[in-house]
Amino acid sequence: MKIRIGIFGYGNLGRGVEAAIRQNKDMELVAVFTRRDPSALTLKTAGVGVYHADTVLDFKGKIDVMILCGGSATDLPVQTPALAAHFNVVDSFDTHARIPEHFANVDRAAKAAAKISIISVGWDPGMFSLNRLLAGAILPEGEDYTFWGKGVSQGHSDAIRRVEGVADGKQYTVPVEAALEAVREGKAPVLTTREKHTRECYVVAKEGADQAKIEAEIKSMPNYFADYDTTVHFISQEELSEKHSGIPHGGFVIRSGRTGFEGEHKHIIEYSLKLDSNPEFTASVIVAYARAAYRLSTEGQSGCKTVLDVPPAYISALPAEELRKTLL
Amino acid sequence: MKIRIGIFGYGNLGRGVEAAIRQNKDMELVAVFTRRDPSALTLKTAGVGVYHADTVLDFKGKIDVMILCGGSATDLPVQTPALAAHFNVVDSFDTHARIPEHFANVDRAAKAAAKISIISVGWDPGMFSLNRLLAGAILPEGEDYTFWGKGVSQGHSDAIRRVEGVADGKQYTVPVEAALEAVREGKAPVLTTREKHTRECYVVAKEGADQAKIEAEIKSMPNYFADYDTTVHFISQEELSEKHSGIPHGGFVIRSGRTGFEGEHKHIIEYSLKLDSNPEFTASVIVAYARAAYRLSTEGQSGCKTVLDVPPAYISALPAEELRKTLL
Repeated sequence: MKIRIGIFGYGNLGRGVEAAIRQNKDMELVAVFTRRDPSALTLKTAGVGVYHADTVLDFKGKIDVMILCGGSATDLPVQTPALAAHFNVVDSFDTHARIPEHFANVDRAAKAAAKISIISVGWDPGMFSLNRLLAGAILPEGEDYTFWGKGVSQGHSDAIRRVEGVADGKQYTVPVEAALEAVREGKAPVLTTREKHTRECYVVAKEGADQAKIEAEIKSMPNYFADYDTTVHFISQEELSEKHSGIPHGGFVIRSGRTGFEGEHKHIIEYSLKLDSNPEFTASVIVAYARAAYRLSTEGQSGCKTVLDVPPAYISALPAEELRKTLL
Repeated sequence: MKIRIGIFGYGNLGRGVEAAIRQNKDMELVAVFTRRDPSALTLKTAGVGVYHADTVLDFKGKIDVMILCGGSATDLPVQTPALAAHFNVVDSFDTHARIPEHFANVDRAAKAAAKISIISVGWDPGMFSLNRLLAGAILPEGEDYTFWGKGVSQGHSDAIRRVEGVADGKQYTVPVEAALEAVREGKAPVLTTREKHTRECYVVAKEGADQAKIEAEIKSMPNYFADYDTTVHFISQEELSEKHSGIPHGGFVIRSGRTGFEGEHKHIIEYSLKLDSNPEFTASVIVAYARAAYRLSTEGQSGCKTVLDVPPAYISALPAEELRKTLL
């Protein structure tokens, strides 16, 4: 008896979930839900139906865990509480500042329905959060550092494309190597925004556009670029498509702490990710936590959880005895 | 009301636990137990009594969590089950091959006593195990790599000191940089023992001893050195004491995995530690899990657990709402 998974929303993340389910033999994809015309979607998994989002409640009792693959801005704040009232759900809500509010809404719905929800699953929030928690609890006296990249920021790429005269563009967030090294050496530096990351933009200008003006506008854009050392490269659409079509990302969570009666010993805990595909990795984390949602629900637990609450063994397909024997 | 901690065994690890408790404001050290003459020990913490190990049962009900700081070879296999029958306990049992047997013994005692035990807490086993589990669950298709060092191996240092003509010695385990790089680049290499680590020995020879004979004997020692590229440096006792008296250690747990419908995307998850003091860091992990043991017990749970079973939030002193708000 496999864990029956539904996918709600079929963009990059939804396709990543579909791919990840194939790597987990204890799970099966039973349905994909979309707000588009279902007949317009072709899945990679044979024999799985695509249904309109409006019909999702017809699947109550037929899906063990619904994986929500919508966006955090407008989709998930509505969809997760709504579906948590009928299914065990997992989402990747990543608007950090609004997590407490989202948690409260989902928790209320899940508790009333006696279902499990796990929110904000992925790598940041997600695995990075988990590592911040573990490292901070182990080394209470110390400093936390998070660096992102090298990777594509969708938000910054979108910002570039809104500049007048820009046909297309992609932005990479790049951690500053010298800052990383200072942290790793236990120097516990205080770093400004500019000292931690640089921003590299690859821009396709429209024909006849003023490149100097575009560059100046990008570099001075508040919040997005003004606080960073930003580099702008003008390239052809062809080169952009050929060399910059991937969605790589990654980053580093480092805690630098001290122990001993006089704080005389330094310790560095570092967790890092180097990802060829941001959405596929996020999807892989989500699928592992879908297993945990199923197990928690089977035990009779209910309400909203995050990666901070879930016993790690619950995300593994291996039985506890084997984990102790082979991994501990 | 603070969590009342007892320390059972006062060597390097016990002193590390004493130091770590000072960094955790929700805990207090209430007693240290030793098999030596208690009057011969002087603690760094004022007002805490030292008692003979034989009197430990007088403290039933006065200690919330007993932290066992004995050795894995002969102490813990006996002490942990014995004390698990009377206290919530945490140990750092690290004989990987015997963990299933130790778990069964401790689980039986803890369940009968309705107490919580958490075994094999530290960094390997411990944080490294946890990271192997998380990474393997997230990327089911991939390879695991564990590298240790650069750091002092007590077992190998002891082996050097047993060689005829050796007055003192210290051994460092060093990961091979080229192997680490190949793994990080996603090449998924198959590595022999010799390709993963080198061994560096600092040896003080007795007066008149044959250094060439000592070096040959060390390098050919089966299990310990014969399978490695081993370097032997002869130095004075003075230099050994001055430059090699610390107990640094560390290491790397790396998973190299693939996602996508064709396994077309590579991902690297890396967790690493760089520790000035191996026993103080291990102690810091143990103290954080003592908090979890107390909480699990307060909830009415019982039996033996490992770091793989404990919800991460339980090891933090911060309330769940604050963790979600600040770390997630």
